[in-house]
Amino acid sequence: MLIIGERINASRNYIAQAISTRNTAFIQSEAKAQEKAGADYIDVNAGVFVGEEKKHLQWLISIVQEATDLPICIDSPDPEVIKAMLSQIRGKPMINSITLEPSRIESILPLVKEYNPKVIALCQSEDSMAETVDEKVKLAGQLVERASAFGLPLDDLYIDPLLYPLSKNSNSALATLSAIEKIMKEFPGVHTTCGLTNVSYGLPNRKLVNRTFLVAAITRGLDSAIIDPTDRQLYSSLKSALSVIDKDEFCMEYITAFREGRLE
Amino acid sequence: MLIIGERINASRNYIAQAISTRNTAFIQSEAKAQEKAGADYIDVNAGVFVGEEKKHLQWLISIVQEATDLPICIDSPDPEVIKAMLSQIRGKPMINSITLEPSRIESILPLVKEYNPKVIALCQSEDSMAETVDEKVKLAGQLVERASAFGLPLDDLYIDPLLYPLSKNSNSALATLSAIEKIMKEFPGVHTTCGLTNVSYGLPNRKLVNRTFLVAAITRGLDSAIIDPTDRQLYSSLKSALSVIDKDEFCMEYITAFREGRLE
Repeated sequence: MLIIGERINASRNYIAQAISTRNTAFIQSEAKAQEKAGADYIDVNAGVFVGEEKKHLQWLISIVQEATDLPICIDSPDPEVIKAMLSQIRGKPMINSITLEPSRIESILPLVKEYNPKVIALCQSEDSMAETVDEKVKLAGQLVERASAFGLPLDDLYIDPLLYPLSKNSNSALATLSAIEKIMKEFPGVHTTCGLTNVSYGLPNRKLVNRTFLVAAITRGLDSAIIDPTDRQLYSSLKSALSVIDKDEFCMEYITAFREGRLE
Repeated sequence: MLIIGERINASRNYIAQAISTRNTAFIQSEAKAQEKAGADYIDVNAGVFVGEEKKHLQWLISIVQEATDLPICIDSPDPEVIKAMLSQIRGKPMINSITLEPSRIESILPLVKEYNPKVIALCQSEDSMAETVDEKVKLAGQLVERASAFGLPLDDLYIDPLLYPLSKNSNSALATLSAIEKIMKEFPGVHTTCGLTNVSYGLPNRKLVNRTFLVAAITRGLDSAIIDPTDRQLYSSLKSALSVIDKDEFCMEYITAFREGRLE
């Protein structure tokens, strides 16, 4: 289970402020906290700073890499920004994200051979944000095909089937769950990943819905997630879900997480 | 989702003591608390009192029926005890449980026409406690066949595929999950139910594993559970799981549970 730590994202006001004021200690403490909590990658996002995204991301990457040995996940919808950052990343970079839109896929995939990144690919094309199971699986197939043509190994491809609010369409989470199951079956070797927060938009007790969805998704085969690993209840749900579906031999990771005080 | 409230069980020491001392107020408060928390049936079990089970169950049933209008689930491995209690039950009784063992199935199923009960049937025969998916589904098929032959509608049959500790076999929960999915598909109209506590035996933070399993099971089709509905985290997991898999239109039950202060 690949955990991408989502906390260093400028859409959080306190992160935006720390970026604006160049509060190195604070950003580094966010990186270290996520490492300690079990993150495998540290996502960095400065998307709210229109026109200044590159400058801020450059700074974020440099100080996060000082604070932790974990690799970086560059989070931007702008392929030019992603391209500009890749050479700075130490270790194996992760790109968050591409879609089937020509501007995004055609700028990024040619860089695969040089940088050997992991790539998050959204089930989204120029004309469609996939909402039904069939659309999600169809777009996933196109992503697999395009990525493979550019030499990206399936093991480096993380398909995000997209997740919409239950409050707008009560079938939306089930569609994503079914898509995860089908994608993992139809394209053996590929990974699936997902952010969680959309699902609970408009509902009370959002974190409860988010972690319930995560458990359900893991039991369908989801093997990566973009989450806040310092959310102890969420992390506990993740670890126990892996035990329940026999992806944690002798429950050793679960027991270790308990001994290290990570569960609640 | 049919919730069978499991608290009034003499294997809990404080319940055994309340039974021994005929503490009516305490037992009635346990029944009312479970009704308030969302139970559909109140399970009563006096199995630890060897030789006195009938007498104690009779008392439990009479005082629980004074305290609540919820129907009773008679919980005993002894078909003679169950038979002796059936005429006392007001409303539609539930029997917990039968197995394929001749002594249990042949004493109980002939009573179906007279008492019209719901019946919990364990995937267990004289020679086998079903551990693999195939065994569970095979025994479920035999239970469906026998129950139907005695005129029990599938809608009154609750198959319990049995759940063993993860700490003894890390595949045990996954086998139960797969069995739930297959049973619900192969025998349309039948229900599945399950107790949860076995799964976490020997692990730390047992309640976390129990509620994670419950979420996973609900997403495979489980539509009844034998639980403590006053466990707020467990109940919250149950309600949010139903929303996530689109068994709660417009999330209205989830939102209602939140407004009534049942979620945490």
